Amino acid sequence: MSPRLGIVAGSGVLPGRVVAACRASGRDFFVLAIEGHTDPAVAEGSPHAWVRLGALGKAIRILHDERVGEVCLAGPVRRPSWRELRPDLGGIRFLARVGSRAFGDDGLLSAVVERIEEEGFRVVGADEVAVDLLPPSGPLGRHRPDARAEADIGRGVAVARALGALDVGQAVVVQEGVVLGVEAAEGTDALLVRCGGLHSHGPGGVLVKIPKPQQDRRVDLPTIGPDTVRRAHAAGLSGIAVEAGGTLVLERAEVVRVADELGLFVTGIDRPT
Amino acid sequence: MSPRLGIVAGSGVLPGRVVAACRASGRDFFVLAIEGHTDPAVAEGSPHAWVRLGALGKAIRILHDERVGEVCLAGPVRRPSWRELRPDLGGIRFLARVGSRAFGDDGLLSAVVERIEEEGFRVVGADEVAVDLLPPSGPLGRHRPDARAEADIGRGVAVARALGALDVGQAVVVQEGVVLGVEAAEGTDALLVRCGGLHSHGPGGVLVKIPKPQQDRRVDLPTIGPDTVRRAHAAGLSGIAVEAGGTLVLERAEVVRVADELGLFVTGIDRPT
Repeated sequence: MSPRLGIVAGSGVLPGRVVAACRASGRDFFVLAIEGHTDPAVAEGSPHAWVRLGALGKAIRILHDERVGEVCLAGPVRRPSWRELRPDLGGIRFLARVGSRAFGDDGLLSAVVERIEEEGFRVVGADEVAVDLLPPSGPLGRHRPDARAEADIGRGVAVARALGALDVGQAVVVQEGVVLGVEAAEGTDALLVRCGGLHSHGPGGVLVKIPKPQQDRRVDLPTIGPDTVRRAHAAGLSGIAVEAGGTLVLERAEVVRVADELGLFVTGIDRPT
Repeated sequence: MSPRLGIVAGSGVLPGRVVAACRASGRDFFVLAIEGHTDPAVAEGSPHAWVRLGALGKAIRILHDERVGEVCLAGPVRRPSWRELRPDLGGIRFLARVGSRAFGDDGLLSAVVERIEEEGFRVVGADEVAVDLLPPSGPLGRHRPDARAEADIGRGVAVARALGALDVGQAVVVQEGVVLGVEAAEGTDALLVRCGGLHSHGPGGVLVKIPKPQQDRRVDLPTIGPDTVRRAHAAGLSGIAVEAGGTLVLERAEVVRVADELGLFVTGIDRPT
């Protein structure tokens, strides 16, 4: 039987999916909710505690007290400024040790994972708990990319990987070979809204959303859901390319239904080698 | 005496600066204005002709007819879709030859430059005509970057160069080591507006705007002006880093006045080696 799961709940719907998966499989779990980030609906009705983002020392004490064996970091956490962070003693020790690695999400996250593992917890990916979150290779729905879209996907993958290697972003929009937008701190929704305004009203255009090359695949995987499909359609795009086994697809059945209805493809591409 | 200058006028204020520099030095010139891109005020009152963007064959005929010796491509040209382009015969021949190099601004521009040079024209940079457009190394005004800003500039340069190598963009905003935004097709103004909303309200933050590593330095250099300084201030940034000898600074005296007044630095950094 699996040990008790500590769900460190970021924003968005992913933590709720992990909670639902635990309930469905009868797995014991505990939600560590982060003030200002976790949707209260995820914490309510589940065993949980609230902590500030900077209170790493307290968070680790709670996970020990709750006899958690495995920890899942689920959902994005918007990066605060150092001033907003107000770290507790455990947080200060952690930041002092992390130093310049804290620049960039990936450096900070991998340091958090190391810190949790040092405490004897095993860190697991959300997709290990909630199966069916990671798509296979090939089209998920009825539509598939044409040759033009394949070319745009190729360019988008090259740009996304270069950006990701610098720990900047995971999403790129390409139309007719032109990079309309690349994601940094603003998130994919804002990227799509902006690219809708830049779209040439020519054919096609794709959103490519894939993990960073050096990413710890247990945490912070790129994510799409039905709203991503709706926004991509509103931006005039012909489809979305995600990484097979590397991009979380939330509510896959609904993603497929919306994409089929709107005429978009959603396709899993193999991890570049 | 310099041969007659053909000014291929893109958008923005740079073409007007080149016209003014020709007038000031008594140099003979001709403006080739592009429908939907050139500010009509630049063409009016000067010898000029209007062409569609796709009419490359016609444009070259006009430059020959007007006995132009040197050509200056001044100001950005928003990339149209192939459908909007409606190339003439010269344009179709050109695009057929350029092929996949047309993906990305840099590939297309360098092909345009080659095509113009094949016709016997010499291509010159706007900064060769309008001197004082390129800044020296070091702060332009009263303020200078502190250690934190220097660190942000370093990260911004690394990201801008990686993006530029992929022919995506030239501008990056970094605050406290976090990349708030990177520019693609939306332009620097939209980048700054968006980053204002993402700013953590902690200290500082910088805009880095530098040429792409492989850029033909006679065309399409990154540009800032007084409005860039105002927008950077509105976004909560502490300053702007440009490349010494590589970024066009329009209205430098006004840039310095505005920056000094608002408390921002504008500094020229050496080209990375």
